[in-house]
Amino acid sequence: MPVENPNFRDQILESFGRQGLMRTIGAMLSRIEPGEVHIRLPLTPALSQQNGYGHAGAVAAIADTACGYAAFSLAPPDHDVLAVEFKINLLAPARAPVVEARATVLRRGRTLTVARADVFGLEHGRESHLATVLETVIVRQKPE
Amino acid sequence: MPVENPNFRDQILESFGRQGLMRTIGAMLSRIEPGEVHIRLPLTPALSQQNGYGHAGAVAAIADTACGYAAFSLAPPDHDVLAVEFKINLLAPARAPVVEARATVLRRGRTLTVARADVFGLEHGRESHLATVLETVIVRQKPE
Amino acid sequence: MPVENPNFRDQILESFGRQGLMRTIGAMLSRIEPGEVHIRLPLTPALSQQNGYGHAGAVAAIADTACGYAAFSLAPPDHDVLAVEFKINLLAPARAPVVEARATVLRRGRTLTVARADVFGLEHGRESHLATVLETVIVRQKPE
Amino acid sequence: MPVENPNFRDQILESFGRQGLMRTIGAMLSRIEPGEVHIRLPLTPALSQQNGYGHAGAVAAIADTACGYAAFSLAPPDHDVLAVEFKINLLAPARAPVVEARATVLRRGRTLTVARADVFGLEHGRESHLATVLETVIVRQKPE
Repeated sequence: MPVENPNFRDQILESFGRQGLMRTIGAMLSRIEPGEVHIRLPLTPALSQQNGYGHAGAVAAIADTACGYAAFSLAPPDHDVLAVEFKINLLAPARAPVVEARATVLRRGRTLTVARADVFGLEHGRESHLATVLETVIVRQKPE
Repeated sequence: MPVENPNFRDQILESFGRQGLMRTIGAMLSRIEPGEVHIRLPLTPALSQQNGYGHAGAVAAIADTACGYAAFSLAPPDHDVLAVEFKINLLAPARAPVVEARATVLRRGRTLTVARADVFGLEHGRESHLATVLETVIVRQKPE
Repeated sequence: MPVENPNFRDQILESFGRQGLMRTIGAMLSRIEPGEVHIRLPLTPALSQQNGYGHAGAVAAIADTACGYAAFSLAPPDHDVLAVEFKINLLAPARAPVVEARATVLRRGRTLTVARADVFGLEHGRESHLATVLETVIVRQKPE
Repeated sequence: MPVENPNFRDQILESFGRQGLMRTIGAMLSRIEPGEVHIRLPLTPALSQQNGYGHAGAVAAIADTACGYAAFSLAPPDHDVLAVEFKINLLAPARAPVVEARATVLRRGRTLTVARADVFGLEHGRESHLATVLETVIVRQKPE
């Protein structure tokens, strides 16, 4: 899909740096392409649920963030994005030491963009499908 | 709804204490009743998204956790709960200093329990509706 | 919530009359109030799934329609509504002879309105909760 | 994914034939493979919403049915499937004369199967992406 904002990479990096939650949980941008953003997260005990696996909230947080920036990468300059809603299906417990959310834009609209993210566990060079997310993002001109 | 596990309160408190993510973000159980669990979260800069509001991932994390424990409160003894999926609609930016997720069980089944959570911002004694969540939880006997 | 379009009732009735699907399945508007619309559906064999119960698609269709009109009832004049997405949790099989979807607006926005619908089975004066729906609707000025 | 029920094709055809709603709206099975089922629907005025496009409820109905049978195709013999919940994002109005829902199993579990369906408009040999669905299906042994 065509890019309208040539500075989308720098702006995503800068915006990501301002996300307190991403820093708190230790998430990293691992890919920024037009319509596609990946975020990687090492699963430390600080992110666990009651059984020691990665908490669904942490998995959802990186998937949501990746969907937002995938939408942002295709938005016009001087626009910002905001999640309207998302749905996550948890396919398997997050047991891997590292997880990665990979978001792709399904539909770019003038007002609403829809993105899908799949979250994979990465371990010993193998990938396992942990979750899938469908998100609606609203794209709006930034206030002056 | 009738309670099958008389120790559900103690077990929820103990289980919550093992959730690394809840400790990391600073969430607290604020109500534990049969079929109803509330979780409160002060929104510090460590939990922000790019504009300084509370991150949807943090909001989702407490709503998901509250839904899971609401289901747990009605489960038989020696059973555990696991989120299957959830959907969140973000109704307003999380600007309040404190948010609270309030989960209620809509349907308790032998295998699947459905819960709804509403998330409110709490500020100066006023409440604002920030998000609503619909979650499916699977209830399973714990391995021996 | 305040009404901006005083003719919303007539316009909902007229619009509903143009919905081929509602006529095909035999659905009826049973309540039209500001921010609240109900739709009733007798469950004939023509609407069944493979086991003779009401098909989830028929239940979803009336819930979706009720959410759309609940949003419409609060929209400005000369605006139309379009479903962006919805999520349905099926709580019990649709065995009752009649079902009713009851939609309420949770949040009215300038662009997006969020509604919830609960679907009940009606039998012998008793109600059973069959499904719950969360829907996002976009509100747009009608083309001239 | 490996097939456990060698008669899945015949049983899907037979089950589909018992679905009153599929017959009422005029839907047809267009592909039955292990973990993948397609359903095609000509969009007549009998299936319209208020503007003459295909109703989201009709689009959801075929996507839901396709997800259920995709799950069924991988289930053990003597098991049936039931939709637990689904979420649909409507990406574009259903203007094409024919739509097709294409469901694929994302995760097959002992109790829960997760499927995704994408719905396309078919017109003049071209396809347009109209909707995407994420569904959870419960797989259960049939009562004797």
